[in-house]
Amino acid sequence: MASEFYLIAQYFTRPTHHTQLGVGDDAALISISQGMEIAISADMLVAGTHFFHDADAYKLGWKSLAVNVSDMAAMGANPKWATLAIALPEVNTAWLAEFSRGFFACADAFNIDLIGGDTTRGPLTISVQIMGEVPIGQAIKRSNANVGDEIWVSGHCGDAALALAHMQGKLTLPADAFASCAEALHTPQPRVALGLALRQIASSAIDISDGLLADLGHILERSNVGASLILSHVPHSAYLADKLADGHRDEGVTNTHDNNILSMLLAGGDDYELCFTAPIEKHTEINNLSEKLALPLICIGRITANAGLIVHGFNDEILDFKETGFDHFS
Amino acid sequence: MASEFYLIAQYFTRPTHHTQLGVGDDAALISISQGMEIAISADMLVAGTHFFHDADAYKLGWKSLAVNVSDMAAMGANPKWATLAIALPEVNTAWLAEFSRGFFACADAFNIDLIGGDTTRGPLTISVQIMGEVPIGQAIKRSNANVGDEIWVSGHCGDAALALAHMQGKLTLPADAFASCAEALHTPQPRVALGLALRQIASSAIDISDGLLADLGHILERSNVGASLILSHVPHSAYLADKLADGHRDEGVTNTHDNNILSMLLAGGDDYELCFTAPIEKHTEINNLSEKLALPLICIGRITANAGLIVHGFNDEILDFKETGFDHFS
Repeated sequence: MASEFYLIAQYFTRPTHHTQLGVGDDAALISISQGMEIAISADMLVAGTHFFHDADAYKLGWKSLAVNVSDMAAMGANPKWATLAIALPEVNTAWLAEFSRGFFACADAFNIDLIGGDTTRGPLTISVQIMGEVPIGQAIKRSNANVGDEIWVSGHCGDAALALAHMQGKLTLPADAFASCAEALHTPQPRVALGLALRQIASSAIDISDGLLADLGHILERSNVGASLILSHVPHSAYLADKLADGHRDEGVTNTHDNNILSMLLAGGDDYELCFTAPIEKHTEINNLSEKLALPLICIGRITANAGLIVHGFNDEILDFKETGFDHFS
Repeated sequence: MASEFYLIAQYFTRPTHHTQLGVGDDAALISISQGMEIAISADMLVAGTHFFHDADAYKLGWKSLAVNVSDMAAMGANPKWATLAIALPEVNTAWLAEFSRGFFACADAFNIDLIGGDTTRGPLTISVQIMGEVPIGQAIKRSNANVGDEIWVSGHCGDAALALAHMQGKLTLPADAFASCAEALHTPQPRVALGLALRQIASSAIDISDGLLADLGHILERSNVGASLILSHVPHSAYLADKLADGHRDEGVTNTHDNNILSMLLAGGDDYELCFTAPIEKHTEINNLSEKLALPLICIGRITANAGLIVHGFNDEILDFKETGFDHFS
């Protein structure tokens, strides 16, 4: 059977562009530009927990790297290097070819060198670590949101959760709607250009991987502030709007369950958009940035002094959310 | 049930010593000393592949980090930062407390900051990435071994394989022998001090994780050279010597099997000693280093121009090895 050294050479070794020593030694070697610090993040994707066992290998390869790139975007860091440790139940060369094609498609899209990792036998588990550069002191942290700051979100919320609900048979989407939402779920587009532009604008930022309320909650907790959100401002696709309209006619709407459309919008994970805060003086600059990046950036509320997260519903009623996000152990 | 955020805070968050921003944001931030480059390595340990499901949690925590520290040692890099991504089948707080105690014991022993990672549900899988500093251009690579260089090994070879064979019932060790060999297998001591000292001495180095012949083979392949080893020089413990003496009386000895004592000595994995090459002029300096570090450093052969790896047996016969190391897929 193919050896792990063959697999690494065949599927996970490509020429590097900004690396001193890549795959093939005890460790890789990289140099950092003067005045920069390194941002480092790691994510693990497990079959059956984060994706279905029969997930498309190309898209899984893309997503495995993209979710890490998204963490760089949330820090305002420029992603440059990644390592990949993968456990495989068997050597399936067709699967490996597709997985690595997807992984490198994302790597090429963001000019990231794969510089090392590990390949071993085990239940399908993908562990990626990413490293990026950010000018010293300019990283966007979760802890600097200030009272009065506006809260912004990029793109749409909830499409990924909508696609997942469709796949789980909890609801049915028209074919075109599912195709569009499935892209958000399977091949997310990390907002690197936005993150880099926000270095000089945002007071705090986070990527929406666990759901808007949960991830904004992390900013509030780290910054010791509260927030007030306007539900009608939270950006969503026409597909989710349709479902929301159905749901809205159902009085159960304000008591959310995990299969509830509102919950998908506010607590659905896997969106990989950015949620960030910025001083109100930056409002126009952010609108201009939205135009420049051709990416919707919508103001959904304000940071408040009183702790907690308040969401004003469609009729300005205060919504009560038990389900604020996805947690792998709760 | 405990949330993943609670688990990270409770078991995997400690004060850092040389890190700008540690666990708790989208990414960690580190700064590199001037004139240094970063060495990066990743390893994945899977239950059932790399360790038994009932493995001691403390020792597993130690080993998870130690095997990565060993890669830094082999590069002559000074380990400073690590990330840990771990998949857990359930939340077992007693297990987590012991695992993290072992992990941080190794981190403290080598002054390593745990700066981030991921905790999720899945079959027990541990993925660690380590980063260290090395002066630009001084990393010890696998690719620079030169014809005529001497080949050296630190410590003993084969004790870890001997302990594993005992645990698998392939042979029986006296209690004290097993206790000693089990330490090599379960709580390996990465040779960081040796690696740092070898920056100015060694032409190439690798850590012995897959077995002496396989790992030396990587140096030969990368350096386009061959090697000639003297079996009687390969350092081993008194426990392995005893078994070797038994085996030596068995004519089957030169036809190795994976349960063969000779194979354990030359092809047994998990030793985490260093194998390195150095010009013959460094011989005395290396002997002095051995004394200074109180660590056996033994010259086991020479680098040759003719490709291939030749081992001279106890009667100067040429040994024929089919089994040259451990491969997770072959």
